[in-house]
Amino acid sequence: MRATLIYGAGDVRVETVADPKVAQPTDAVVRVVRSCICGSDLWPYGGMPAQEHGRPIGHEFLGVVEEIGADVTSVRKGDLVVAPFVYSDNTCEFCREGLQTSCLHGGNWGVDGVDGGQGEAVRVPQADGTLVKLPLTLEETSDELLASLLTLSDVFSTGHHAASTAGVAPGKAVTVIGDGAVGLSAVLAAKRLGAEYIVLMGRHQARTDLGREFGATDVVAERGEEGIARVRELTGGHGTHTVLECVGTKAAFEMGLGVVRAGGALSRVGVPQYPEGPIGRPVFTRNITITGGVAPARHYIPQLLPDVLDGRYQPGRVFDRTIGLDDVPAGYRAMADREALKVLVK
Amino acid sequence: MRATLIYGAGDVRVETVADPKVAQPTDAVVRVVRSCICGSDLWPYGGMPAQEHGRPIGHEFLGVVEEIGADVTSVRKGDLVVAPFVYSDNTCEFCREGLQTSCLHGGNWGVDGVDGGQGEAVRVPQADGTLVKLPLTLEETSDELLASLLTLSDVFSTGHHAASTAGVAPGKAVTVIGDGAVGLSAVLAAKRLGAEYIVLMGRHQARTDLGREFGATDVVAERGEEGIARVRELTGGHGTHTVLECVGTKAAFEMGLGVVRAGGALSRVGVPQYPEGPIGRPVFTRNITITGGVAPARHYIPQLLPDVLDGRYQPGRVFDRTIGLDDVPAGYRAMADREALKVLVK
Repeated sequence: MRATLIYGAGDVRVETVADPKVAQPTDAVVRVVRSCICGSDLWPYGGMPAQEHGRPIGHEFLGVVEEIGADVTSVRKGDLVVAPFVYSDNTCEFCREGLQTSCLHGGNWGVDGVDGGQGEAVRVPQADGTLVKLPLTLEETSDELLASLLTLSDVFSTGHHAASTAGVAPGKAVTVIGDGAVGLSAVLAAKRLGAEYIVLMGRHQARTDLGREFGATDVVAERGEEGIARVRELTGGHGTHTVLECVGTKAAFEMGLGVVRAGGALSRVGVPQYPEGPIGRPVFTRNITITGGVAPARHYIPQLLPDVLDGRYQPGRVFDRTIGLDDVPAGYRAMADREALKVLVK
Repeated sequence: MRATLIYGAGDVRVETVADPKVAQPTDAVVRVVRSCICGSDLWPYGGMPAQEHGRPIGHEFLGVVEEIGADVTSVRKGDLVVAPFVYSDNTCEFCREGLQTSCLHGGNWGVDGVDGGQGEAVRVPQADGTLVKLPLTLEETSDELLASLLTLSDVFSTGHHAASTAGVAPGKAVTVIGDGAVGLSAVLAAKRLGAEYIVLMGRHQARTDLGREFGATDVVAERGEEGIARVRELTGGHGTHTVLECVGTKAAFEMGLGVVRAGGALSRVGVPQYPEGPIGRPVFTRNITITGGVAPARHYIPQLLPDVLDGRYQPGRVFDRTIGLDDVPAGYRAMADREALKVLVK
């Protein structure tokens, strides 16, 4: 099959690799119908040391089951399924707590002999625990619906994790930091959870415009101290109870601490690019909670699915470019150059 | 009146100062019946630069109302009252959210012309918002009950804040870091909230013995990596869902991160003595929530009071020495030298 491999910074190639086959009785093979490029794929694309052998990449996909192992019972050949961005058995003690990202038998796509999502097919370990069967056939879907269903794999679930762990609830005020696909998904997720007032901090107008359509009531383009002052001005001087930090830089985290109200929560879903952060006395005396982390998408997909299926929420609108598999390297360039917000691979 | 002033590190004096009087119509004057020395008083006692004029000190007290301002309606002369460790109006938007430590019109004892608690009397600003009237007279109390009621002012409320913000609930496993008065109070508070398994990390046996009486099911004397390994060994390898960090050093925080289970919460109630902490990828990928802060004792006192009044919980047992006001300097020395766990001033 054809699949995407990363060889180092700026070096992503689509090559012919071995066709995936069921190796364990708990495996399934899924033919990929839709995949995409993630903002987090840009970290290795930006800085991975060059290596001789390519590593499969991609962790978001939706497709049709082609083959199942002898122990797989929850999906069968021909089922349309979506996969979360990590695989998990969904039965261990962490999975039962809804934290499939800490599954004792789970793991990441693209490493340890597991395929990446940006290819024609994927061998899915722990298929019963990992895959979520969608209640319709491929023929019953549309391009728009497939795009929205694909976001359950990562960005919409991640936005929901931010909103959920921060405690977004009806009537709450929210600040979302970052106008990337996760930030916009967090706006939509906050709106879905009943937030009435949503400040989106970002400065790419095409993106913040979509953010407004998703539910942002205000957009703040300023950053740093200016951005903090602007959000405080908009919120009676005290900031918002919930802050969803969807970037991952220390500057974004510090900005989050500046706009969170005393007694409030700052949820991080951007992978932190800093080992230490300022959590000393100001955080303590203001009773700020720092929460969030890697989203257990597998836990959230069943909760979010009905609202996506009925079209009430259309998180797939974050995709602003669609390409074929052979164009994946160009897709990486477009996202790295910020020409594209999020690239769908068809 | 006689009151305690701190002049610098190691220099605490009991001197004659002006008698407190009602200055604002919202003030009350309280004659102090019981006060105490706090672990956090040891920070200035350990490191405050010497100064010419003494600063009043002490922030925990219980007493009898002697005089009230014209606007005070909730307490009257002769009432037995307990004061939280900060004063607050109890009506501003933060107070209404239960965060009296962020009161817009509140403040600290011992600064800005407000008396400290370690003296014969205190002028209490915002008396209606600050003081909690106790439903009995001084004559109806006992030494033991007064000691327990005094802990509502700070340590028992602080322990409860740790347990409550961390999400301690029936059946949960808890690790408490620190065997000082707050750590032991946190054990008792966790027990009260239904924790079934409580590991106390501390190595002063007289203290950890009291911790066992308060509800600790295991005591771990080891620290650092050894302490982490021991707690993990006791908890099936994964640590506990809730960790109550009652020390405030970076080492204690790091130990907390080592013993908290993925998806769990680490609540800090020891004032952090570090500006930055390790909140990078391990915290993120394990979905650890960092919470806690300065306890809004005023919010908790009404909740905790019934269980203290009926003797079901006896947090006053953390006091292991009782002194008179003139002996306060010796009391500081005893606590600084770890000869005393917590000193009551009668």
